[in-house]
Amino acid sequence: MSVQRISRTALAIATALAGASQAHADEGMWTFDNAPLAQIKQRLGLELSPAWLEHLRLSAVKLGASASFVSKDGLLLTNHHVARGCVERLSTAQRNLIANGFVAHGRAEELQCPGADARVLQSWQDVTPQLRAAAPASLGEAEGNAARKSAIAKLEADCKQETGLKCDVVTLYSGAVYHLYRYKEYQDVRLVMTPEAQASDFGGDFDNFTFPRFALDFTLLRAYEDGKPVQPAHYLKLAAAPLKDGDAVFVAGHPGNTDRQNTLDQLRAKRDVLLPLRLKELQAEREMLHAFAARSPESARRAAGQIAGVENSLKAMTGQHKSLLRPALLEQKAKEEADFKVAYKASGRSDDPWAQVERATAQQTALAAQQQYSGYGWNSLMGLAGGLVEAAAERQLPEGERMRGYSANGLAAVERRLRANSPVYKDLEQARLAFSLNRAAQALGRQHPLVQAALGSDSAEAVAARVIAGTKLDQQAERVRLLEGGAAALAASDDAAIALARKLYPLHRALARQLEREVDEPLKRAADQLGQARFALQGRGVPPDATGTLRLSYGRVAGYDAEGIKVPYKTVFGGLFARAAAFEHQMPFKVAPQVAAVRAKLNPDLPLNFASTADIIGGNSGSPVVNKDGELVGLIFDGNLEGLGGRFAYTDALDRAVAVDIQAILAALEQAYGAPEVARELRGR
Amino acid sequence: MSVQRISRTALAIATALAGASQAHADEGMWTFDNAPLAQIKQRLGLELSPAWLEHLRLSAVKLGASASFVSKDGLLLTNHHVARGCVERLSTAQRNLIANGFVAHGRAEELQCPGADARVLQSWQDVTPQLRAAAPASLGEAEGNAARKSAIAKLEADCKQETGLKCDVVTLYSGAVYHLYRYKEYQDVRLVMTPEAQASDFGGDFDNFTFPRFALDFTLLRAYEDGKPVQPAHYLKLAAAPLKDGDAVFVAGHPGNTDRQNTLDQLRAKRDVLLPLRLKELQAEREMLHAFAARSPESARRAAGQIAGVENSLKAMTGQHKSLLRPALLEQKAKEEADFKVAYKASGRSDDPWAQVERATAQQTALAAQQQYSGYGWNSLMGLAGGLVEAAAERQLPEGERMRGYSANGLAAVERRLRANSPVYKDLEQARLAFSLNRAAQALGRQHPLVQAALGSDSAEAVAARVIAGTKLDQQAERVRLLEGGAAALAASDDAAIALARKLYPLHRALARQLEREVDEPLKRAADQLGQARFALQGRGVPPDATGTLRLSYGRVAGYDAEGIKVPYKTVFGGLFARAAAFEHQMPFKVAPQVAAVRAKLNPDLPLNFASTADIIGGNSGSPVVNKDGELVGLIFDGNLEGLGGRFAYTDALDRAVAVDIQAILAALEQAYGAPEVARELRGR
Repeated sequence: MSVQRISRTALAIATALAGASQAHADEGMWTFDNAPLAQIKQRLGLELSPAWLEHLRLSAVKLGASASFVSKDGLLLTNHHVARGCVERLSTAQRNLIANGFVAHGRAEELQCPGADARVLQSWQDVTPQLRAAAPASLGEAEGNAARKSAIAKLEADCKQETGLKCDVVTLYSGAVYHLYRYKEYQDVRLVMTPEAQASDFGGDFDNFTFPRFALDFTLLRAYEDGKPVQPAHYLKLAAAPLKDGDAVFVAGHPGNTDRQNTLDQLRAKRDVLLPLRLKELQAEREMLHAFAARSPESARRAAGQIAGVENSLKAMTGQHKSLLRPALLEQKAKEEADFKVAYKASGRSDDPWAQVERATAQQTALAAQQQYSGYGWNSLMGLAGGLVEAAAERQLPEGERMRGYSANGLAAVERRLRANSPVYKDLEQARLAFSLNRAAQALGRQHPLVQAALGSDSAEAVAARVIAGTKLDQQAERVRLLEGGAAALAASDDAAIALARKLYPLHRALARQLEREVDEPLKRAADQLGQARFALQGRGVPPDATGTLRLSYGRVAGYDAEGIKVPYKTVFGGLFARAAAFEHQMPFKVAPQVAAVRAKLNPDLPLNFASTADIIGGNSGSPVVNKDGELVGLIFDGNLEGLGGRFAYTDALDRAVAVDIQAILAALEQAYGAPEVARELRGR
Repeated sequence: MSVQRISRTALAIATALAGASQAHADEGMWTFDNAPLAQIKQRLGLELSPAWLEHLRLSAVKLGASASFVSKDGLLLTNHHVARGCVERLSTAQRNLIANGFVAHGRAEELQCPGADARVLQSWQDVTPQLRAAAPASLGEAEGNAARKSAIAKLEADCKQETGLKCDVVTLYSGAVYHLYRYKEYQDVRLVMTPEAQASDFGGDFDNFTFPRFALDFTLLRAYEDGKPVQPAHYLKLAAAPLKDGDAVFVAGHPGNTDRQNTLDQLRAKRDVLLPLRLKELQAEREMLHAFAARSPESARRAAGQIAGVENSLKAMTGQHKSLLRPALLEQKAKEEADFKVAYKASGRSDDPWAQVERATAQQTALAAQQQYSGYGWNSLMGLAGGLVEAAAERQLPEGERMRGYSANGLAAVERRLRANSPVYKDLEQARLAFSLNRAAQALGRQHPLVQAALGSDSAEAVAARVIAGTKLDQQAERVRLLEGGAAALAASDDAAIALARKLYPLHRALARQLEREVDEPLKRAADQLGQARFALQGRGVPPDATGTLRLSYGRVAGYDAEGIKVPYKTVFGGLFARAAAFEHQMPFKVAPQVAAVRAKLNPDLPLNFASTADIIGGNSGSPVVNKDGELVGLIFDGNLEGLGGRFAYTDALDRAVAVDIQAILAALEQAYGAPEVARELRGR
């Protein structure tokens, strides 16, 4: 669909819409090619130069979530919780880096993170015309999609061929704009220093998503290339002066996704069906994991990472759900949608993408329970089996016909995951598999084809025991053998997990394709139409929804009024000890032992965490926070509870990004963790 | 109206109502003659003996709000904010006890508080039959009221005559029960020790009504009799062991008033008219006082007490208003009222007190603006003038015809206030009078008789300047002269404030009497009917609304979940310094200088404040908190924000009483304020 001529009415309404969005003030996760220079000048009184922007962009790193280069020798700063997977994989019962932390004294001691990679956005190109040409409106829907998929794959492959860089086509403005992003990629990332998990996790799930906060949620890694530390062209230098209340700050990171352009029907479906279903499931999963952890200290260690993941998701989704239950939010959205509908019609369009969304959303809610149970399990052994079976099968299809996630790029990621040498705990895997099979049977009924295929007439417990006992996929070598053997090796395998994945695959594929056809594609098509219409009305004066790609946020360091409680802009180390004491030092409110050991030496007034109005969301974890001079002042690790509704709408009265102050990181390195040489490297000395 | 036979239906509903109220758990400010022993046993597992209750009751003191005896030599513990009036009256520009605190080293240095008195409830008697007999339903309403007033005055006078004690008839259960309370009264109360106001006021209005909290809100006084320290029969001893999370606690204090039995019409009137009007007025008053305070440091000192009072009222009423705006609260009340109406009808009653409340409430809202402006001004010079004029005139009338507040007891309180040697600042008085005259003119119009009487054709500023310049009522001797000279002296006076009060008095009286007739009395009569009906249904299984008389509350030390933020049950000194540091030690988040000076010596983990589920409300300030052994563990000084709705309904999930830990008081005395001898006296050594 092409951009149409805009009527006067539409323009007037567009102006009104833009005005409304300016009222949201520090809103926006902006692409670097469209940094909001005018707003920054107006709101912060600062003029950012192209060199300033380039320096920040080339220092920013995608690493799972976000990170940044912070030394000339490729030191990477990110969150403990972002690097947690690496730290866990490097841990054993004998060497528990999660519980005890780790410091490499010298390069030789740095430990390679299995499966980790880091990338830096080098350049980009607008490929909207190419993709519009490849998939013109004249093609049918299915053909159009297939054509676009192929065109994207070709653009990415050609780009890689030409530049040697990793290339991704990124969809912006709900499909109004496509950019080809080119990344420098580092596949050798090593652990340099990580604190005890308790330093990062102080307050546990209670304090998650809250402020005031007292978390040393940081970890330092290093990027290597050809066995040598990377010398990045750009890295962030430490701020010379400490932060003050009201200081301007900027965040460069990779916000995962927002739903700020969702229609009312979509928001209502999330509020009434989709989020409640996920919440119910997560609650059950948490219960199961806690029961597993209660078996023994070793079980607790094994389950800790997944418990943290589940609780994190649970609180985040509860917050989102709560924000959708607030009448004000949906009323505001209803008003915006009504205005947009008028402008849409006034611009001469006669179709009705909202009706299309309504139908697709109805189908989405109808299929939600099946979708919930048709996978192989998140981050699980069965997930590895499914990945092997699917990769081998999907690889044989043309790109346009593959399930999502199996483009060339997707296949590479699946491969990396399969090749990674991550520890797998069969007892935990068995508990999780039995749980998910039982849940599926309860939700879908014993007669459902998915349940039939998995269980037959057996119990979930029996199937799980048989499958986990009968698989060697916990062994890296076996995974690699099957990966490299391809479809033939998989067909010949008598591995029990592979056998189950083979049975589930066609059913999973059928449902996945149905969802693509009846939900994702219609939603995407409608979002395309709406996104382009909005783009035609508002242009690049508003930022696109987050897409997991590099974005710039801006704002000020600021406290807030939490319903009558005055919340300061920062916390200090003394506050950490005070909160611990107020809870009698009971877990999870125990100060991490190595920090507690140096209490007398630590300045209690030293800043620990701070809050700012920068607009962030999940995926921003590990993002650097810089001051007006582009110097590093902090490390994003969370948002506040009030900001969980930020998925749908932002308010700078309440939404806060929460960061570790860089001074706290230096104090931890120098005083608590015996890593003065890392601090020196950070200080650039 | 007599208690009627209760039908089966009514009984069933009564049981349901009682069940519902039990769901509120730790609810209730109970009279000591009806301590909730069964609930305490059930909820806390404790059996309280009559001796336990008597000891606590006879240690509890009414002193403005609440206090308690804490040594064998009559030492009284209360809040700084309760004793603030005394501390202010003892302060001068040269000796600022508010800013600097005060410690008497030895009895000779103890300073007598002007106008203060302390009393202890000695005994009580049910006088319901006498009052029912004196004012039978057969009398008309006006006659009945007058007869009841006379009977109450006679009961009080006779009691005083017989016992030498101060006697008050107290209305309980909305008029279902009348008790005659007999108090031992002490009119010589002296200041022993008070910290700097900033120690009590840390966080200022921002932290008021919040928890976690960091306030040393205490002051020590001493009761004297015949020039010697009182040796009370009972006083509280310090707890041997520190408090732990979950410990049972009890509070003995004087909660002022609650509106938990209000009908829906009353709650709606408060929500929609009465509270918004008061809030608007308080906001304007705050603005005026801040403008005055901005004139000079001395102006700021003079206005500080009134600013604190206004801000305190403002936040409390905002919280109450907010709670009334919560749909859940009114929905719950609507349900209870509907059930009660059914039970009321089922018990054979044919009248409709709810309709009566509806009419009276309509009149109350209609007269609210006039009522707002018909007084002489709270705690002001014009208030003293009004007191003189009214006391002289009302004294000449039979008790039954006097305005409320001018019974024999009321007259004694007015006299004490007039005789007190409190400093009056004419510049502040002038600003306040001009302000209130202007507000009256704006709200009622220049033509309103009240405004006409006060202003004629002059400006508010001119009248205020003339009145304040032309009065000597700031001088204690002049007030005493006019008080003792009575009506004749007042008629002959050419004092400008007296002249204005003489003009306003008939108008004020007419409105006051109209309000008594058309609002207070019908509401009281309806509340009588409802209270008796509820009492007939539920008996003494529920506590009466608070009435400013001695009550027992119980509960547990407990944190809570503030919408996703886990709040601990206590705070520690380290938290005080951490909150100060987080706000860069800017006022009002500056640690009081004498506390800050000993930071290095103070144990940062020492408890400072704690929260409990005990059900309290304004008037409980200064109440002792005791443990299961009746030993002193803390000092109530506030409730949390969530508890402000406690005026209308209590929930132990969220409502918290906030207290200073007795350990914090000892640390302050011993380490910060150089008062180890006071600490020793508290420790009973």
